[in-house]
Amino acid sequence: MNMKIIQSPEEMQKQARLLIRSGISIGFVPTMGFLHEGHLSLIRIAKESADVAVVSIFVNPSQFGPNEDLDAYPRDFERDEKLCRDAGADFLFYPSVSTMYLNDHSIWVSEESLTGVLCGASRPGHFRGVCTIVAKLLNIVQPDVMVLGEKDAQQLRILRRMVRDLNCPATIIAAPTIREPDGLAMSSRNKYLTPDERAEAVCLFKSIEKVKELFANGERDAEKIKTAVRSVIEKTSGRVDYAEVVDNETLRLVQTLEKPVLVALAVKFSGARLIDNTVLG
Amino acid sequence: MNMKIIQSPEEMQKQARLLIRSGISIGFVPTMGFLHEGHLSLIRIAKESADVAVVSIFVNPSQFGPNEDLDAYPRDFERDEKLCRDAGADFLFYPSVSTMYLNDHSIWVSEESLTGVLCGASRPGHFRGVCTIVAKLLNIVQPDVMVLGEKDAQQLRILRRMVRDLNCPATIIAAPTIREPDGLAMSSRNKYLTPDERAEAVCLFKSIEKVKELFANGERDAEKIKTAVRSVIEKTSGRVDYAEVVDNETLRLVQTLEKPVLVALAVKFSGARLIDNTVLG
Repeated sequence: MNMKIIQSPEEMQKQARLLIRSGISIGFVPTMGFLHEGHLSLIRIAKESADVAVVSIFVNPSQFGPNEDLDAYPRDFERDEKLCRDAGADFLFYPSVSTMYLNDHSIWVSEESLTGVLCGASRPGHFRGVCTIVAKLLNIVQPDVMVLGEKDAQQLRILRRMVRDLNCPATIIAAPTIREPDGLAMSSRNKYLTPDERAEAVCLFKSIEKVKELFANGERDAEKIKTAVRSVIEKTSGRVDYAEVVDNETLRLVQTLEKPVLVALAVKFSGARLIDNTVLG
Repeated sequence: MNMKIIQSPEEMQKQARLLIRSGISIGFVPTMGFLHEGHLSLIRIAKESADVAVVSIFVNPSQFGPNEDLDAYPRDFERDEKLCRDAGADFLFYPSVSTMYLNDHSIWVSEESLTGVLCGASRPGHFRGVCTIVAKLLNIVQPDVMVLGEKDAQQLRILRRMVRDLNCPATIIAAPTIREPDGLAMSSRNKYLTPDERAEAVCLFKSIEKVKELFANGERDAEKIKTAVRSVIEKTSGRVDYAEVVDNETLRLVQTLEKPVLVALAVKFSGARLIDNTVLG
């Protein structure tokens, strides 16, 4: 089957309805494009989990803050198209901003419990934008399965909550973070890094390795875990945006590691803010 | 076909998916129960517009304010069940509060442009509750067509906006208000009225008839329309909660009736707050 490129939301929705009525299951990977091996791994999982794989490419304005990198966000549709095709996508949904957000758009989906920490605290409104666009995409693509990356740990948990609380008829599959050979988590934003910063950026991964080791050796004090993360980052030019230890389900801050926790951090370099995380316990 | 009663959201969703995969179209009428002829007219329209009709009965706590009538809201499931069956419903979805709102429910759907006036102004949070529950119900029932009553004029416009902005794969059909012989719009809340109030309650309808007549005679001044509404209501024991003239699409207040307008009013009696409306132009 040749990959079909669809720009109109109505056309994509019609196509999805036809597939469903034919008993064909749909796997879905929402992306903002500028695809890397991480995205491609999600597409392959979608393809394994359903009859057809739909990839969306949409740089969603509503999840960027006024001082964030919406205009500078990297785009390369021709390259993405080829990558999707090679990864086995059957449909590439590539809508315009004006068809996704009409001038008088006024409906928003928000999450009110998992959003106040981590990236939600650093980026007000970000997850409202994420929830709204993914709610829209789920209604358009109507997938049986949606594949999301574990790199965006808070996003994954918030979208799981959304699918649960809005009774979205889709199952979420979480896929492991794909890393560069030195351990840096793949991200479209890595290209913003200067060569020196790119070399330093492995510090996020190193800090995670460090806390895994501490945990394996019995450390259960969240403060010590956070200090260990910060001490690794502070040896570089990166500035810690946050480094937190939170309950893996509720995302509430914890002091002692009793139940599984999410250790998550965001680091700002001159041209890019990078995130990474691990679950302990 | 015998009407099937379903309590579990998962079961309803599974049933809907089966219908869709069999090429059977679904018409849907969301209600809070205590059905009257207005609801039954919606069920009949759903049945005419699709292969099967699904009715939901759910008194949605999140659309009631802390000082509103959630606990007192009238309920009579056995009667409703019979009425649904007689009106030709194929499925009656009757979930519990605890399956619809899990303890840590944290996702909300809100509308931010049409909500600040009329009932939205009088009942803060009301339409957030309405949008959230209807988004959930649409995902559970997955209808081709949802039938809503014109009596709830602002709700109708907000849910049209939601279906548009969230790309919900359903078409909304609006159905005219059904009235008692004297003109009072049917409402589950009419039963709260004392006999005297019931006699007076026709004032809402009378005020609408009055402004229709003014409009037919050339009146285009919104202030005069509002004054006419108030003067009819003020002859009774009812207290005007609001009486507004707004643009029929944007719901913005208008001063001069140039484009179609919605004239909407809410009146408080001792035991019930009643609403009614008409479109002029």
